[in-house]
Amino acid sequence: MTTIRRIGVLTGGGDCPGLNAVIRAVTKTAMHQYKLEVLGIEDGYLGLIQNRMRLLQWNDVSNILTLGGTILGTSNQANPQCFAIERSGKTEWVDVTDRVVDHVRANELDAVVCIGGDGTMTGAANLIKNGINCIGVPKTIDNDLEGCERTFGFDTAVHTAVECFDKIHTTAMSHHRVMVVEVMGRNAGWLALHSGVASGADVILIPEIPYDLDVIAAVLYERSKKGKRFSILCVSEGAKPKGGDVVVQRRVETSPDPIRLGGIANKLVADIEERTKLDARATVLGHIQRGGSPTPADRVLATQFGYHALEILMKGAHGQLVVQQAGRLAEVPIESVAGKQRKVPPDDPLVSTARAVGTCFGD
Amino acid sequence: MTTIRRIGVLTGGGDCPGLNAVIRAVTKTAMHQYKLEVLGIEDGYLGLIQNRMRLLQWNDVSNILTLGGTILGTSNQANPQCFAIERSGKTEWVDVTDRVVDHVRANELDAVVCIGGDGTMTGAANLIKNGINCIGVPKTIDNDLEGCERTFGFDTAVHTAVECFDKIHTTAMSHHRVMVVEVMGRNAGWLALHSGVASGADVILIPEIPYDLDVIAAVLYERSKKGKRFSILCVSEGAKPKGGDVVVQRRVETSPDPIRLGGIANKLVADIEERTKLDARATVLGHIQRGGSPTPADRVLATQFGYHALEILMKGAHGQLVVQQAGRLAEVPIESVAGKQRKVPPDDPLVSTARAVGTCFGD
Amino acid sequence: MTTIRRIGVLTGGGDCPGLNAVIRAVTKTAMHQYKLEVLGIEDGYLGLIQNRMRLLQWNDVSNILTLGGTILGTSNQANPQCFAIERSGKTEWVDVTDRVVDHVRANELDAVVCIGGDGTMTGAANLIKNGINCIGVPKTIDNDLEGCERTFGFDTAVHTAVECFDKIHTTAMSHHRVMVVEVMGRNAGWLALHSGVASGADVILIPEIPYDLDVIAAVLYERSKKGKRFSILCVSEGAKPKGGDVVVQRRVETSPDPIRLGGIANKLVADIEERTKLDARATVLGHIQRGGSPTPADRVLATQFGYHALEILMKGAHGQLVVQQAGRLAEVPIESVAGKQRKVPPDDPLVSTARAVGTCFGD
Amino acid sequence: MTTIRRIGVLTGGGDCPGLNAVIRAVTKTAMHQYKLEVLGIEDGYLGLIQNRMRLLQWNDVSNILTLGGTILGTSNQANPQCFAIERSGKTEWVDVTDRVVDHVRANELDAVVCIGGDGTMTGAANLIKNGINCIGVPKTIDNDLEGCERTFGFDTAVHTAVECFDKIHTTAMSHHRVMVVEVMGRNAGWLALHSGVASGADVILIPEIPYDLDVIAAVLYERSKKGKRFSILCVSEGAKPKGGDVVVQRRVETSPDPIRLGGIANKLVADIEERTKLDARATVLGHIQRGGSPTPADRVLATQFGYHALEILMKGAHGQLVVQQAGRLAEVPIESVAGKQRKVPPDDPLVSTARAVGTCFGD
Repeated sequence: MTTIRRIGVLTGGGDCPGLNAVIRAVTKTAMHQYKLEVLGIEDGYLGLIQNRMRLLQWNDVSNILTLGGTILGTSNQANPQCFAIERSGKTEWVDVTDRVVDHVRANELDAVVCIGGDGTMTGAANLIKNGINCIGVPKTIDNDLEGCERTFGFDTAVHTAVECFDKIHTTAMSHHRVMVVEVMGRNAGWLALHSGVASGADVILIPEIPYDLDVIAAVLYERSKKGKRFSILCVSEGAKPKGGDVVVQRRVETSPDPIRLGGIANKLVADIEERTKLDARATVLGHIQRGGSPTPADRVLATQFGYHALEILMKGAHGQLVVQQAGRLAEVPIESVAGKQRKVPPDDPLVSTARAVGTCFGD
Repeated sequence: MTTIRRIGVLTGGGDCPGLNAVIRAVTKTAMHQYKLEVLGIEDGYLGLIQNRMRLLQWNDVSNILTLGGTILGTSNQANPQCFAIERSGKTEWVDVTDRVVDHVRANELDAVVCIGGDGTMTGAANLIKNGINCIGVPKTIDNDLEGCERTFGFDTAVHTAVECFDKIHTTAMSHHRVMVVEVMGRNAGWLALHSGVASGADVILIPEIPYDLDVIAAVLYERSKKGKRFSILCVSEGAKPKGGDVVVQRRVETSPDPIRLGGIANKLVADIEERTKLDARATVLGHIQRGGSPTPADRVLATQFGYHALEILMKGAHGQLVVQQAGRLAEVPIESVAGKQRKVPPDDPLVSTARAVGTCFGD
Repeated sequence: MTTIRRIGVLTGGGDCPGLNAVIRAVTKTAMHQYKLEVLGIEDGYLGLIQNRMRLLQWNDVSNILTLGGTILGTSNQANPQCFAIERSGKTEWVDVTDRVVDHVRANELDAVVCIGGDGTMTGAANLIKNGINCIGVPKTIDNDLEGCERTFGFDTAVHTAVECFDKIHTTAMSHHRVMVVEVMGRNAGWLALHSGVASGADVILIPEIPYDLDVIAAVLYERSKKGKRFSILCVSEGAKPKGGDVVVQRRVETSPDPIRLGGIANKLVADIEERTKLDARATVLGHIQRGGSPTPADRVLATQFGYHALEILMKGAHGQLVVQQAGRLAEVPIESVAGKQRKVPPDDPLVSTARAVGTCFGD
Repeated sequence: MTTIRRIGVLTGGGDCPGLNAVIRAVTKTAMHQYKLEVLGIEDGYLGLIQNRMRLLQWNDVSNILTLGGTILGTSNQANPQCFAIERSGKTEWVDVTDRVVDHVRANELDAVVCIGGDGTMTGAANLIKNGINCIGVPKTIDNDLEGCERTFGFDTAVHTAVECFDKIHTTAMSHHRVMVVEVMGRNAGWLALHSGVASGADVILIPEIPYDLDVIAAVLYERSKKGKRFSILCVSEGAKPKGGDVVVQRRVETSPDPIRLGGIANKLVADIEERTKLDARATVLGHIQRGGSPTPADRVLATQFGYHALEILMKGAHGQLVVQQAGRLAEVPIESVAGKQRKVPPDDPLVSTARAVGTCFGD
């Protein structure tokens, strides 16, 4: 077992509230509890590839707990094995793992704490195979990591979404309208499920439960008959009709946040207006769900994740990912979960709860 | 001068935070200070046409100060002169002014307080011509009423927009991105101007100052060169390029909130990416700007507007609209302002202020 | 096993965000899923004693998910065994359990869902002994129920406290001051612990870890020497010095929220100013921590608790209390936990986390 | 008229949201529009006395618009004429104006922008007499500057207070209680007036309208009789009974925020409970009203104030204070307003509005 004296820390992939809280906890625990040196690696794996990193001081990580974003920067460079270089006008993909390994050695890093999502963990798995000790801290605003019941950023995203729902609610009530609100979630419906339950949405549509437009139309019509002249639908961007396909009209493959020229929300509005003759409107929450200061719960969770990463590292862990299971922190091998998504089971207790209070899932 | 014993109150047009605060102030002032009876008319002019109104009690307007929406409901029926009826499968437009006048007389309303926007005031002007005393309270979330320097709902809309900008800011900083955020404002740029200044946007585009894409590209490039790897654009939905036209791809004419399948924000993102090769993203704030609990400033202003409407009514006013001028409440004849929009003058002090601190208006 | 056809629901004790969410979930699940009738009992046990209850309709519990407070009202009447009556100018305490049993029978209630804290559960245990089936839903903003890892209202209280800390932070930074902020928590320090970690407090004082003023003074002095000219202390109202006693100067015994004429925060400010000559200020958060709209997480949790209460009732449960354990809903006999408080263990993982990032607990 | 090439900027006195927005606007306008150099003076007049100032760069004032506090620091050193020095164990007050004048000359400052309250302006008036050009930007969270209808920070303070009132409202409703909430305002009641109107307080007590306890008791009793079982009082800390005196039990004279061991709120609670036998509770909002990120309206106003300070300076102004009058920016001589407080006139339109909707002022 190597003695740990110096570590690196990086953040990869899209924005997620709580990144700075993790960086702070990792750095402060390393410096205060274990007297280690911490190098902040800039812009995710890009900083490892280009050898851009700096020694972090206590003050660098003071007063960042509440800040959104990441003081280290991030990038879409998900894996040193696929580095894009421009050569005679064309993009070529090259493997720069060797370069990364050299930079880690040259900077005498005994381990690298990699905070990121799926792509970042795939990159970390590659580095581990090349002899670099990586400790992973999962980052997914969608809360969809296999083997982990809660990730930081999710509570903040739900909070932001529900604030919007609360605002839209009053408009819907006054105008007798069907409001279709699209939240994040390509493949997993956790954000829509929690936001929908927390805002009392009448209909929740998630990728895991394909919907039937007739069922939705019947619910809206029933509400209208009972004198409820408005309805609110909370819809995952990846929601899809039975037998149908996800509606994403333009997708920029290299980007985590495609510009969509009309996704599922607009399709649903058109379909509902045609079917029910009710007045319907779409709202796409978009980027605001990823930003802002983390909620207190996310600050606490992110701090715990950062602390736990250091704890297990100092106890000899190698290639492990921090997770939460049954309300407690734990760890699993990075390669065991990379690429595995946790989806909403159709019989999830929260789905049953929502159904019991009258929520329609379109099925 | 008629003795006032009984009045009606209605809200027309789109949602706007503060409507309930006005209803409450009108009703409580009428009941408490002047011992009048107040009838709440349902769903704007539709309630006058269909004779749906109810006597309001003190408790009906208690605890509604903080609520978004309107307890009276609203509708898009902007003017009793154009009432749509279905006849043998076709929509016909008929003038139902006589019916409205009958209902006002039958309910012994000595005056009607009409809270609404341009359309509502056009309807009120018609009723005034037919001998009904209407007192108008202006409602425009865009703050663009000629002869009135501030309307309720505007502060709340700015607040909601700025909260979103603050969230997007951290994402932009971490990701080195150009974020284009579209706020409301078809013809007047007040919301974009105030939101942009309050959030420190790098570029503000408003309908009154057509933009030159080359100027914007130069600013973004300049920032990028100085090491600022992100930029934020705050854009009115009605912003337009020099010599160009407003970009609204689908508009449903009868609706105040068209579903747009890609407005100015998406166009700008495409144009900027093409011109600068920078990574850009669009966010359209949409309906959330109209909803929610009014800010304290809007609650105060709406309460003052409602009180003033009663004050001038009891002093003998006829066909007047409540306005704010030079920091004080005043009134102007309804017909003198109906249909007149207050636009941002290119030399508005706030535009000069924004330019002085380095903001680009694209010109 | 009795067939359940009709149930009552009541809320007892102090305010707690999420009460309406539980009422809504209980009522909607009962009506929608099980076709039961639900009677809303007014003002906690007082309504049972005085036979004040009303049949709830679907609309009574619509749009209340987001509301703070309780639509049923509450009271400090914690137990029908101790009912205060005025007799010839003196207060006498009488046992009115019989009267309550009669009212439950007369209203044909097959079970009563009791939402409340310790006092309410003691009352419920008494009713259970008298043959009334009570299902308990725990309500403690302090999150200190034995055998339950999370109660609704706690996340909202932390959220409110942290918002205040975030505001106070900037003032402290600009003024070079020691800010002592007192949060709720007579006997258990959960709220201070979570609020302190989430706001990056320099010192956290909780009842479970008595403090040494010399240790605190040393930390403040050390920070001052390092150029950090401000410090923030997050203090439970029940924090106490080593060998000392809780500082609560005036306590009105029948009231859950005594007016304190200077509690621990003011004592600490005086002590710190005397010992360190630093400028210190106290803030007591007080009642605002109990009020307001529940956070999304609390809305979800409260909804789940309400649903689960009905689930177990319909499966034959008798005298059970809903709890959360290891991330899942479960139940325990009411009498097994009544009166037992869950305190912060000195080696709680969150305490260790806080220590690792440099937080002082005054020991 | 001196050519202006280099200016200083300082912030003095207590915290106030918007200080950084003014610093940013002053500095950016100076650098961007007028190509001046700006020195940031640390800790108010203390920095001038001790010659602590640094050249500000564009990046120093980037991303500070939304921050509470002041990046320059502040102090209670209100006037260079009264500087405390310790000599043989005793505090002596000396006049260090000469030293300040020397430091201003040595740093080649052609003018100093002084952002602060009454004390700061008295200090500025002294410097002006000694030949230093000071431009004042008023800072008073109480909005009580004579000749200025609105100051930055006030909207934020009202916002914070009203958020607390909204939370307390639900608790009061559920518990049938009289809630007495104390807001800032020693001598002027603007904050209580606006917060009270915006939160629908039943009773508003301000220093300008001494209250009669019998009148308040009658209102509370009347509400109770009508079935309203709760009432909310919004009280300035300087509110006082007719013929009585302000209740501030301990006051530290050198400090802007005395620790009070029970102010007017606690007195009122005791008096009301004794007189009406209703259950009453006190909440003192305290420091949180001064902190936090400024509201959008305050960011805009602070930016305008900072810009205007530079504008008038470059046009030759000397010893002027920026103010807002009739909705527009203007300026008045610093010495003409220093020490003059703007109080709430008993016939202020907002007082009349509040009375009309049924609010009691205790008179």
